[in-house]
Amino acid sequence: MSGNSIADKKTFNNVVQYNALMKIAESRMTNRAFVPSYEVPKEHFEMILEAARNAPSGANSQPWHYIVVTDPAVKQKIGDFFIKEQQLRAKLRMGFPTPSYQGMKTAPGLIVILSDFRFIRAFPVLNDGSAMDLRYKRNAEWILLQSVAASTMSAHLAAAALGYAVWWSTAVGQEDIGSQIKPLLGIPDELSLIDIMCFGPPLKPSYKRWKKKLDEIMHWDRFNRKNFMTDADIDSWIKNTRHKVMYRDRSQVD
Amino acid sequence: MSGNSIADKKTFNNVVQYNALMKIAESRMTNRAFVPSYEVPKEHFEMILEAARNAPSGANSQPWHYIVVTDPAVKQKIGDFFIKEQQLRAKLRMGFPTPSYQGMKTAPGLIVILSDFRFIRAFPVLNDGSAMDLRYKRNAEWILLQSVAASTMSAHLAAAALGYAVWWSTAVGQEDIGSQIKPLLGIPDELSLIDIMCFGPPLKPSYKRWKKKLDEIMHWDRFNRKNFMTDADIDSWIKNTRHKVMYRDRSQVD
Repeated sequence: MSGNSIADKKTFNNVVQYNALMKIAESRMTNRAFVPSYEVPKEHFEMILEAARNAPSGANSQPWHYIVVTDPAVKQKIGDFFIKEQQLRAKLRMGFPTPSYQGMKTAPGLIVILSDFRFIRAFPVLNDGSAMDLRYKRNAEWILLQSVAASTMSAHLAAAALGYAVWWSTAVGQEDIGSQIKPLLGIPDELSLIDIMCFGPPLKPSYKRWKKKLDEIMHWDRFNRKNFMTDADIDSWIKNTRHKVMYRDRSQVD
Repeated sequence: MSGNSIADKKTFNNVVQYNALMKIAESRMTNRAFVPSYEVPKEHFEMILEAARNAPSGANSQPWHYIVVTDPAVKQKIGDFFIKEQQLRAKLRMGFPTPSYQGMKTAPGLIVILSDFRFIRAFPVLNDGSAMDLRYKRNAEWILLQSVAASTMSAHLAAAALGYAVWWSTAVGQEDIGSQIKPLLGIPDELSLIDIMCFGPPLKPSYKRWKKKLDEIMHWDRFNRKNFMTDADIDSWIKNTRHKVMYRDRSQVD
């Protein structure tokens, strides 16, 4: 085959399907307050996690568990743990513009996402405790996190496809929150809390956040230095831009 | 509002759109050998990275860069680095059933995925070097990795939507590969190689890998102990199942 035959172009150019995906990807918008009285049908949870189930993972290990939380009292407690963490951050003077977690307490859809880090030993590692093993184990930990995120992203797109607003709350590494949530849901010690996914009809309409332009993230054959940020650029972004791009409509940034 | 009104059910029940997404998610299948002579149109790279661009990220930092590699000589070299790593793993007797990386050398679509870990300081951290800061920094590193994976997953789904077979090759933490690829593409020292994404028309048809059943990953209000794997279960899975689920058609697994 020299170049692309017409058949190829047709087979690998399903623009209709691509456009359907992009419509969903663009409608996936973060919202942090949902209609509390709305009841998510059970089949929607199943449909959303059916998407999560189909994601790729390192060594096809599928190292994820999803707990659908429907008990209002448990949702309240989970939201309270995040609010407590937010208060701690304020006290520590992190200067991070943490969002309000109030909406988590009454989110109609709330799914606790877990991972099993024991699967690291199913990845390319030596399991002999050597320095090289530790290097590979770090690599493996990252592969595992990427796998769970790929699965979680699929779930978020599925919720967006159904028409819901979504909220991806990272809880990774926040051991306090993890250790408080675990007994509420009977989560074994061996598993780790990774994220909370909330979704539902938005209380106020969602709006599109600022995104970098395509040519700011896309490079052809060589890294384009014009897209490089110096340390000073990053510090300035944190000081002057971060709070805007986190919370404003994109039309209100710059 | 008590319960769901008919209007709600209609607005948040876009099953047609959901089915379109699921068709794409299910057709996203890993393949590791593509038609070498096929030329990916430039606009397909743009369409695929347009999906990546729309992903969510911690603090909306969008800490990702995508380098499209079109130079055949550079692709050869990148493939060779992975093959060298594979040979090292064999020599170390890892026992991991590493795939063949030959197909990477001639993949029509090859995108090098980078992240900028300096954005960790834009996440909730203290930046004072304390033990608590280190804990939050680890958390932040994970948020960053999850962000890049969410973006990468979007790109893979876009490629699958167009009709391509895809291959997600993790390179995270493999510093040797990173340090060898960087000079080839003019990648600044400050950035980290995360993954290689390959795609194209498959040389042989793709096939669906084994996936856990929905009720093995989905739990209602409490973790269902029947889905818990003991350490012995995981060891046995690695020994007896891993190689099958990584490489066989799902109809050929048990």
